Amino acid sequence: MSQHVYQTNQPREEKQNRARMLILCPDRAGIVATVSQFLYEQGANIVQSDQYTMDPEGGMFFMRIEFDLNNLESALPSLQEDFARVADRFSMKWSVYRAGRRKRIAVLVSKEDHCLLELLWQWQSGDLDAEISMVISNHEDMRQLVESYGIPYHYIPVTPDTKAEAERQQLELTEGKVDLVILARYMQIVTPKFIERFPNRIINIHHSFLPAFVGGKPYHQAYSRGVKLIGATAHYVTEELDAGPIIEQDVQRVSHRENVNELKRMGRHIERTVLARAVKWHVEDRIVVYQNKTVVFV
Amino acid sequence: MSQHVYQTNQPREEKQNRARMLILCPDRAGIVATVSQFLYEQGANIVQSDQYTMDPEGGMFFMRIEFDLNNLESALPSLQEDFARVADRFSMKWSVYRAGRRKRIAVLVSKEDHCLLELLWQWQSGDLDAEISMVISNHEDMRQLVESYGIPYHYIPVTPDTKAEAERQQLELTEGKVDLVILARYMQIVTPKFIERFPNRIINIHHSFLPAFVGGKPYHQAYSRGVKLIGATAHYVTEELDAGPIIEQDVQRVSHRENVNELKRMGRHIERTVLARAVKWHVEDRIVVYQNKTVVFV
Amino acid sequence: MSQHVYQTNQPREEKQNRARMLILCPDRAGIVATVSQFLYEQGANIVQSDQYTMDPEGGMFFMRIEFDLNNLESALPSLQEDFARVADRFSMKWSVYRAGRRKRIAVLVSKEDHCLLELLWQWQSGDLDAEISMVISNHEDMRQLVESYGIPYHYIPVTPDTKAEAERQQLELTEGKVDLVILARYMQIVTPKFIERFPNRIINIHHSFLPAFVGGKPYHQAYSRGVKLIGATAHYVTEELDAGPIIEQDVQRVSHRENVNELKRMGRHIERTVLARAVKWHVEDRIVVYQNKTVVFV
Amino acid sequence: MSQHVYQTNQPREEKQNRARMLILCPDRAGIVATVSQFLYEQGANIVQSDQYTMDPEGGMFFMRIEFDLNNLESALPSLQEDFARVADRFSMKWSVYRAGRRKRIAVLVSKEDHCLLELLWQWQSGDLDAEISMVISNHEDMRQLVESYGIPYHYIPVTPDTKAEAERQQLELTEGKVDLVILARYMQIVTPKFIERFPNRIINIHHSFLPAFVGGKPYHQAYSRGVKLIGATAHYVTEELDAGPIIEQDVQRVSHRENVNELKRMGRHIERTVLARAVKWHVEDRIVVYQNKTVVFV
Repeated sequence: MSQHVYQTNQPREEKQNRARMLILCPDRAGIVATVSQFLYEQGANIVQSDQYTMDPEGGMFFMRIEFDLNNLESALPSLQEDFARVADRFSMKWSVYRAGRRKRIAVLVSKEDHCLLELLWQWQSGDLDAEISMVISNHEDMRQLVESYGIPYHYIPVTPDTKAEAERQQLELTEGKVDLVILARYMQIVTPKFIERFPNRIINIHHSFLPAFVGGKPYHQAYSRGVKLIGATAHYVTEELDAGPIIEQDVQRVSHRENVNELKRMGRHIERTVLARAVKWHVEDRIVVYQNKTVVFV
Repeated sequence: MSQHVYQTNQPREEKQNRARMLILCPDRAGIVATVSQFLYEQGANIVQSDQYTMDPEGGMFFMRIEFDLNNLESALPSLQEDFARVADRFSMKWSVYRAGRRKRIAVLVSKEDHCLLELLWQWQSGDLDAEISMVISNHEDMRQLVESYGIPYHYIPVTPDTKAEAERQQLELTEGKVDLVILARYMQIVTPKFIERFPNRIINIHHSFLPAFVGGKPYHQAYSRGVKLIGATAHYVTEELDAGPIIEQDVQRVSHRENVNELKRMGRHIERTVLARAVKWHVEDRIVVYQNKTVVFV
Repeated sequence: MSQHVYQTNQPREEKQNRARMLILCPDRAGIVATVSQFLYEQGANIVQSDQYTMDPEGGMFFMRIEFDLNNLESALPSLQEDFARVADRFSMKWSVYRAGRRKRIAVLVSKEDHCLLELLWQWQSGDLDAEISMVISNHEDMRQLVESYGIPYHYIPVTPDTKAEAERQQLELTEGKVDLVILARYMQIVTPKFIERFPNRIINIHHSFLPAFVGGKPYHQAYSRGVKLIGATAHYVTEELDAGPIIEQDVQRVSHRENVNELKRMGRHIERTVLARAVKWHVEDRIVVYQNKTVVFV
Repeated sequence: MSQHVYQTNQPREEKQNRARMLILCPDRAGIVATVSQFLYEQGANIVQSDQYTMDPEGGMFFMRIEFDLNNLESALPSLQEDFARVADRFSMKWSVYRAGRRKRIAVLVSKEDHCLLELLWQWQSGDLDAEISMVISNHEDMRQLVESYGIPYHYIPVTPDTKAEAERQQLELTEGKVDLVILARYMQIVTPKFIERFPNRIINIHHSFLPAFVGGKPYHQAYSRGVKLIGATAHYVTEELDAGPIIEQDVQRVSHRENVNELKRMGRHIERTVLARAVKWHVEDRIVVYQNKTVVFV
């Protein structure tokens, strides 16, 4: 269906001179002054700036700056080289991202399609400023849907016997080719090796308000406990199950009237919403991870 | 301050003929027809009726009916006697409450006053249709506040040594004299013996979204886990800590910017709101407990 | 795409004996008893019952009952005939709907696709228990999308010159063939004649929190006024613009940071959610309209 | 009641060196760099900084900076003098506030006490970092309550005949003596002359989601229109009724079941919450007004 395939990975006109800088360092006087003075002298125009100090007495300092710079593509390398000296003085961890270079996403799914559909919808409407490079699934169910958007669909079955081979195929498809992996209700545990290759670059949607109801069948657990709100949590995947840095959460009111199936149905709406927000923030370089928590500049 | 003391335990004019019936039984055909026919024949006028069937195939059936009956006070005993025969046929557990008889409440507090203040405010404005009979505290801090409302204040210190004596005093003050006990941020564990005397009649406010962050210092736990919403839970107290039937929950959005103290500050607002809703529902006979869960007719 | 076309208009096994009754009449003693007794004697089993009395002193009484009845298809006519006599005694307006007969929907759209996509998604996942019989648009844009679901797509352009002809075509396509018309961001005014043919059966989604920002460009109006929440409203269409009975509303927090385009983007999410809820309630016969307001039994 | 009177207008130890700067000017390159460099050279340590550009192409630029400066009290005058030259170059409107100087508030009330109670509660708990200097009312009802907090209570009756005299008294009491006036459900129209003396320094709580239901009896209007959410709006008072810059709004879900009295009851909760948030933001110097809208840095 050709009408869907209107997005490409080319830097887009309007954002080709826009960059985003993320900084993390111990707090001390003069950081903001130094960084903004540096950018000003480089000819950059700051269009957005956010900062956060964990603790004014000796805490960590986080900063996100969006700036425009003429001829960004050619000017950025020397700016980065110069900034490295500034960063050293403040012991900064830092990155610069070009807004015009959309992140490449691999979406992993199983049989539930609502999270994938939401990502496709937001991508198609232009709300999700990224490239969905491929969909990988351990089932064939969504091939036709995905291919109708002109997106490659890779079927990689996972069984206890094929687990190692599946991991090998997943890595071969994604490594160096995608910037972000989304587990959009993917019902297989991803391997430590896979996680290691995408540190803080795998986003999972868990269908509960973590840390409540870790593990399997969270809606059954929620029903059984009789909670009055159900939730969903988007988080980066780490080796410990459902314990990675939380990016976003939301909840919805329920009552005794909803049985497990109705909780699942209502939950789908929260899951897709929460996941889409988290993905949007990630691809817009709004998230810094520190000590298993996220700082999200929105 | 005499202006506060305008509420009494007298049946009030407008509600003196209003009753509420709560029913719980195995579902089968004809329950609604039988009960409503029975009330009609007794001359009662149903003003509100709610029901819930857990599972149309052999589940439990719950019902709450509000009705008006002329000369309720004198007519109710024979209505109850007659209804017992109906109830037997359907193996019902049931209760009838007079709306004009306001429930007597004992509030237990420690040092945090926001939940108590909210109850006093709602009681004074007429939103909480109950009688606050006494406040019991293990500190003296709130005596002046409470007594200014004309409410007796009992100081019962609790130390490891005086625990048994404290329980004895608490029971002596409350047993047979109050219908509901509210732990409004009371920071002592109530004893199994005390719980046993008030089955499903002790409401606690826990300052987290249960079952997340059971136990002590939930805001510290929430901060440490990096959740994006904090919550509060009102529940009936059972012997297992923070595991009783949940009555009401709510949450509020937070971000990385809030430290533990700010979480506490924001949490106070949710705690008082959630507790006040739960108490309101209890005193209006809207809650049925079944298998450690609540059915709340609102 | 054949995988989408799995829903048909056949009464489905599990719901073929389920009916829903909606009643509206002046309140008086004995209604619930009479109706539930009547259904019991007919052999019906009440699985859900809700009621609402506008004012215990002489107000209107509203009731919704779901019941199961063996051989509903053949038994219903005589039940209705018998009930007519009961209804007369109480001056009831009433209707009975078979849950197994899914309502047929015509969706009218222009160029914005998010509301239509949501309806298609909920329909496909089984959450929207209805038949989408056709999509009518004054543009060709969504033909391919709609036809991929096996749904007929009718292009009816509307210009000042063709307005009468367009109305004629719309009526020809829909009259007697659909039970509900949904204006899913359809940017043309529907004619009084069209409205007259579908009384309280046309649902519009207005992209503001009505009655704020009636008329055109509500997001521009919202931006200009500097509101801190934006909203959407689903309502039945009446002759007066944006003034029909409100079915559902919701809002989302915004700040000074959002410009008009961002309000539109965020608003799309609320619009589709609110519209989908309203449509769901309509097709499940949960709505009674009275004096330009809705009673919604949920 | 002496336990309430623990707050004074003294600069407090921990905040005595903290200042807040608000800036408004046409956007252009170098503002952030210049301001942060300036503060750095003055020896100030920026602890929080927020900015907003209305439109990167020629829009307005807004900035809020919190900084610490040793010996603020004595050092501030020369800093301000020096900054005036910087500000001139960028055509800035700007202000600096000392965090240690708490704003003095006059609360105007009539007969509804919930908004006043909330302010007193937040003030007493330390959440509202301000001084409540006086309460003015056109009724005597709340004298005892207010005086129990050690706050002066001024009874100024307002009738058509005494309107001019009432205004004179209000101005005499407040002018030069308070920094902020709060209309906490004060049911009299304040005069243009009064408004003129407190430009963008009078906060009103309107009991609807503005611009819906401007004017009197908004809950009656909401009930009559059949909305599914009710709301409240805190705004600065301007000469045009209910049309001043909106600071904060919130809503709560209602249904057909709530009559006007119940809307009022539920609305009280939103009103006090929304008002308290708006007041908190004002006294923390988080609000900039521009073209009848607010920029709120939270």
